[in-house]
Amino acid sequence: MKRIIVMMSLFVVMFAINANAQQNLFGGQDFESAVVNDDNSVTFRFLAPDAKEVAVAGDFASVAEENPIGGMVGSGLLPMKKGKDGLWSLTTEALESELYSYMFMVDGNATIDPNNPYVFRDFATVSNVFIVGNGKGDLYKVHDVAHGTVTHRWYNSEKLGMDRRLNVYTPAGYESSTKKYPVLYLLHGAGGDEDEWVSFGRATQIMDNLIAQGKAEPMIVVMTNGHAGMEAAPGESSWGFYKPKHLTSGTMDGVFEDSFMEIVNFVESNYRVMADKSHRAIAGLSMGGFHSMHISRYYENTFDYVGLFSAALIDREDATNKIYSNIDETLKKQIENGVKLYWTGIGTEDFLYDANKEFRAKLDKLGMKYTYMETGDGHIWKNWRVYLSEFAPLLFK
Amino acid sequence: MKRIIVMMSLFVVMFAINANAQQNLFGGQDFESAVVNDDNSVTFRFLAPDAKEVAVAGDFASVAEENPIGGMVGSGLLPMKKGKDGLWSLTTEALESELYSYMFMVDGNATIDPNNPYVFRDFATVSNVFIVGNGKGDLYKVHDVAHGTVTHRWYNSEKLGMDRRLNVYTPAGYESSTKKYPVLYLLHGAGGDEDEWVSFGRATQIMDNLIAQGKAEPMIVVMTNGHAGMEAAPGESSWGFYKPKHLTSGTMDGVFEDSFMEIVNFVESNYRVMADKSHRAIAGLSMGGFHSMHISRYYENTFDYVGLFSAALIDREDATNKIYSNIDETLKKQIENGVKLYWTGIGTEDFLYDANKEFRAKLDKLGMKYTYMETGDGHIWKNWRVYLSEFAPLLFK
Repeated sequence: MKRIIVMMSLFVVMFAINANAQQNLFGGQDFESAVVNDDNSVTFRFLAPDAKEVAVAGDFASVAEENPIGGMVGSGLLPMKKGKDGLWSLTTEALESELYSYMFMVDGNATIDPNNPYVFRDFATVSNVFIVGNGKGDLYKVHDVAHGTVTHRWYNSEKLGMDRRLNVYTPAGYESSTKKYPVLYLLHGAGGDEDEWVSFGRATQIMDNLIAQGKAEPMIVVMTNGHAGMEAAPGESSWGFYKPKHLTSGTMDGVFEDSFMEIVNFVESNYRVMADKSHRAIAGLSMGGFHSMHISRYYENTFDYVGLFSAALIDREDATNKIYSNIDETLKKQIENGVKLYWTGIGTEDFLYDANKEFRAKLDKLGMKYTYMETGDGHIWKNWRVYLSEFAPLLFK
Repeated sequence: MKRIIVMMSLFVVMFAINANAQQNLFGGQDFESAVVNDDNSVTFRFLAPDAKEVAVAGDFASVAEENPIGGMVGSGLLPMKKGKDGLWSLTTEALESELYSYMFMVDGNATIDPNNPYVFRDFATVSNVFIVGNGKGDLYKVHDVAHGTVTHRWYNSEKLGMDRRLNVYTPAGYESSTKKYPVLYLLHGAGGDEDEWVSFGRATQIMDNLIAQGKAEPMIVVMTNGHAGMEAAPGESSWGFYKPKHLTSGTMDGVFEDSFMEIVNFVESNYRVMADKSHRAIAGLSMGGFHSMHISRYYENTFDYVGLFSAALIDREDATNKIYSNIDETLKKQIENGVKLYWTGIGTEDFLYDANKEFRAKLDKLGMKYTYMETGDGHIWKNWRVYLSEFAPLLFK
């Protein structure tokens, strides 16, 4: 955005306009929106001459008790002002450096900003995104550093009886060296899939930047789908384009954990990795934290690094899978076998705050040493990006 | 969508609702939209109790001379009917099997369907998508077949002085064999980037399906960024999230063509490929067709297969790059050296129809044998998916 974009000869511009007009469903409007200004304020614009009320609904606005229009979850509303020719606009105050999500509310209807083509899918919903830099948000941006590779690949799960999709980040230099690398298995939440850490999680950018800054060891990051009933992210499997709604069989019933070593075996026989405990880490958010806790204690001598990000550490009393029996005994074994880092983080507003508190009490009782990070806010990506940024530099050192 | 999705125990559902409520900016609505029915009709739904006029704007609706509301390009409007509780709906007639794009027009404002999380970016704009099967659209769906791998990778361009991003499709079995593969270089249009063939182009699905059906040879497909001034697709480079607007220096000025062999060299030294003319193909749409024509004649003994999809075969009289001189001479040399397949396709409504007609006359005059496919419609993805589906099975046989 800051680089000067040079206009080409009139011919090429005219051609491009023609080409765009034909390729795109909607013609472009000649202005930009979600423009991050030098002072970290952000300017939004929306053309709607006939609208009565237009507002920005974003996770940067504080949530009002009563929303003037519409009913959003986890986001407040900032009313926009109508200007000349029906162009509504709003410039926020300076925002904290962060990746933010937003949409517009137009006379009560939520709509994507047609002048910001960056739309991320979060399981069943989409929203626009932008990044405010000059702070921790810089870690979530693409910088002019050596870039790792992101691969969408399929592995066969004999236990689950299907081919399944996973995303693999290999650090810059992987392809041109003969070096072996450590591996972080990075898991998503119940309302997610293997693509979430790539989109909202900014795992590619965080790892590229931490490695380029010398803060994290070069490592492979494997992002798999934690719903054992699914082959792949919605839209990426033979189920087609559908709106994810109810969880499928295979979610938090032990089946994923039970089949997890198939993924480890696949990675260790398909990538140049150091295939031992001291070079294996597992971490995840919410359901992925639940998975990381259970997988790391069930396979009790497999992972030297464990990260529980706002983990869903809830009893699965109704689940009959063997995975969920003997929890304390296996945790004790895991402690005896030794863990280099047991990391846990939670936001003070998280609905899982108490469950995490209880779990830490259990760890204390059993004698597990752990690192604990408490942040503000609730069960949101803002925290999980921070947790990854804090956790990754501690690995494999 | 057709598989039965089993609800889990109440706990897990409640947990998921909580998890979603916290993760997502917008709470979900409890209905689906863009549902493809068994008879190939499609049902749209949009909740807007206070709206006065809601319509579907889609490329499946014929374009009216005068749009009742809003001004879209290349798409018609189908008015929806307001039902109980402000739920607007519309069921189309049976649609031809195809991948379609659409949005809603709500009281004159274009908005994304909040109940269809599939939103594709086409350079500067986004739209919802769905696929109608039972015909050629089946080729664009993910099926339960062996899947190839898609890799987002960076190569260094010495000539352009930057690292650049490309997408590489390797067919199923690539990683587990020692076989060498042929390569198709597949290029995008002026209003696009390296991600376009992956999203709207459905190149991954088309190749997976054609290969699984035994119709196409297993091959590597390399999708690169044809704007030589760009490192990567908008949002994927250090330019950040921005709205692509004007073309940058490096577009259709010969610089991309001049640096193209760096990409070929990168692919041939980083992948297991058959590195000879008879195992190299180059094809592209619009500007990518222009690139394919110029690259294949400038490096006149390099590619045995050339595909020009609605190619922008326009004189670059104002461009001074050496690439655009001696066109007829180098075409003659290319003919003398031999080309196994010179394929060209165009839609009868394409604004480049006449330019393509003139170019075919030139080929006739020079004695180049070519395969010509004429379709209906204009400069749209519908044609380019068909052209790839027709072209790929003819390669490397």
